[in-house]
Amino acid sequence: MNIDMIRAAAERLNGHALRTPFLNSPLLDALAGRRVWVKAECLQLTGSFKFRGAWSALSALDPKVRAKGVIAFSSGNHAQGVALAAKMHDTSAVIVMPADSPAMKLENTRAYGAEVITYDRDTEDRNEIGARISQERGLTLIKPFDEPQVIAGQGTCGLEIAQQATEQGITDAQVIVCCGGGGLTSGIALALEAEAPGLRVRPAEPEGFDDVARSLHAGEIKRNLRTSGNLCDAIITPQPGDLTFPIMKRLCGAGLVITEDQALAAMAHAWNRLKLVAEPGGAAALAAVLFHGDEIQGDDVIVTISGGNVDAAVFARALELA
Amino acid sequence: MNIDMIRAAAERLNGHALRTPFLNSPLLDALAGRRVWVKAECLQLTGSFKFRGAWSALSALDPKVRAKGVIAFSSGNHAQGVALAAKMHDTSAVIVMPADSPAMKLENTRAYGAEVITYDRDTEDRNEIGARISQERGLTLIKPFDEPQVIAGQGTCGLEIAQQATEQGITDAQVIVCCGGGGLTSGIALALEAEAPGLRVRPAEPEGFDDVARSLHAGEIKRNLRTSGNLCDAIITPQPGDLTFPIMKRLCGAGLVITEDQALAAMAHAWNRLKLVAEPGGAAALAAVLFHGDEIQGDDVIVTISGGNVDAAVFARALELA
Repeated sequence: MNIDMIRAAAERLNGHALRTPFLNSPLLDALAGRRVWVKAECLQLTGSFKFRGAWSALSALDPKVRAKGVIAFSSGNHAQGVALAAKMHDTSAVIVMPADSPAMKLENTRAYGAEVITYDRDTEDRNEIGARISQERGLTLIKPFDEPQVIAGQGTCGLEIAQQATEQGITDAQVIVCCGGGGLTSGIALALEAEAPGLRVRPAEPEGFDDVARSLHAGEIKRNLRTSGNLCDAIITPQPGDLTFPIMKRLCGAGLVITEDQALAAMAHAWNRLKLVAEPGGAAALAAVLFHGDEIQGDDVIVTISGGNVDAAVFARALELA
Repeated sequence: MNIDMIRAAAERLNGHALRTPFLNSPLLDALAGRRVWVKAECLQLTGSFKFRGAWSALSALDPKVRAKGVIAFSSGNHAQGVALAAKMHDTSAVIVMPADSPAMKLENTRAYGAEVITYDRDTEDRNEIGARISQERGLTLIKPFDEPQVIAGQGTCGLEIAQQATEQGITDAQVIVCCGGGGLTSGIALALEAEAPGLRVRPAEPEGFDDVARSLHAGEIKRNLRTSGNLCDAIITPQPGDLTFPIMKRLCGAGLVITEDQALAAMAHAWNRLKLVAEPGGAAALAAVLFHGDEIQGDDVIVTISGGNVDAAVFARALELA
């Protein structure tokens, strides 16, 4: 895993993925007490940064292998990313999703042309389902985060942050990243190490699912006790990845931990001040900036809004806080 | 009014206003039956394109005149644009707003530092109020649309559309623009005439407030019967401007007319597919594309989402349609 892989991924993504905007709102700055720069990955194709990693991984496959189809496990954003990237590569995708995934994520994954197979989180083993289907049909597994070409794809977001921060004259700031398994976090950290070493990544996670924060603190991988039961479904993973954790350990500052209510309030602020639709997990970094500002240093802070795939009922709860 | 004024405004806006993104969603394309390109002006500073015209007008004033302060009449988006542009120019702004303006627009205008004076649409004359205050304090009136430097500022959005369409290989398409008094519509039309003559503007308006569509059809200015009572508050004006109408008459295709329910449904689609917050008036062009596609020609269509300043209760109504 190195910066050259990220640069190569950026070449492959060029013309297919969006260079997402780097937004600022004077009213949000006033709330946060510092300048807040928002990398709006919810505007990426499929509504989250996951399209970057999916495109990177699919475009790196041998065309003959790719033509047989791909398979992925995901609660929703990686699912949509892989589904659309497969469609755009004229190949097929099978996505194994928990039956209780947000309805929008299930619907959109199907709408992008993927075959969706649902399973019960409590009684079925997704790895067993995936291995069986994959073997039967000769499909290639696209892992959600612990895969070099996926990390490289997510890292392209970091290359853009480096450029966009430089355009704004920002050379020294913390970059708060919504963090699940660490694909986006480690990819951005690698890109910034090479391109903007004054920008330092810190992961943001939900309370009770702060495996990365605890792992960084302990210096070794720690697991979450639970694997479901939080509105921030997009960033709930059992533990940091074997590939992503060493990168985060080397390059990231301490993790920030937010509550579900803070995620909902951050969604309301993104709606009001930025005119962006954020999902709870995609608003974690903004929540950290708005509600844990005393744990952050610097006059400027950069945050990712990493996704916007949220059901209307959950969004309505956020609006009640607006 | 000419293209050189728009180019000069673009120079003055550079580094202050945002070059807003040009977004596309495969799922939205599928709904519309053609490729839909969205110029996301709701992401502009203050949440609408109006910041462009306000900055253009304020930056064109003699500094001594500007230092005395400015005044504007507006139901909300021009209000916020002028308020922030005044603050960024270190001068003061008085904004005369209807007392029944959306709460968010009143709050945000104050939050940008302006002095807000409300009036009763039914019993008070805003022109009388404005003239009195303006005279007492030596303020310069910044008109919302019928003012050359405001049209020039809105036209910078058209310069960007011309560039962004070219980047996507689009040389021939209709450009549907949310239309009130015609500042944005005429500005974009002038910019495209010079920079991308294969792109032709068509205004979109709410039913019952289709003064521009009727004026274009008649070849002369027609008034609306009502001046309030529609969710699309941002694009409700009594009649086209004396400056904007001749430009629209020369350059625009026939107007498109949408219902309030179509505007709400378009807001839901913008939320779901684009992760953008649109206000009803800002969703009029997208509503025309989604619900009046048979009146539009071409494989590609370009639409503005011109603003996103909407109260939570109205947004919740749109979400119910998601």
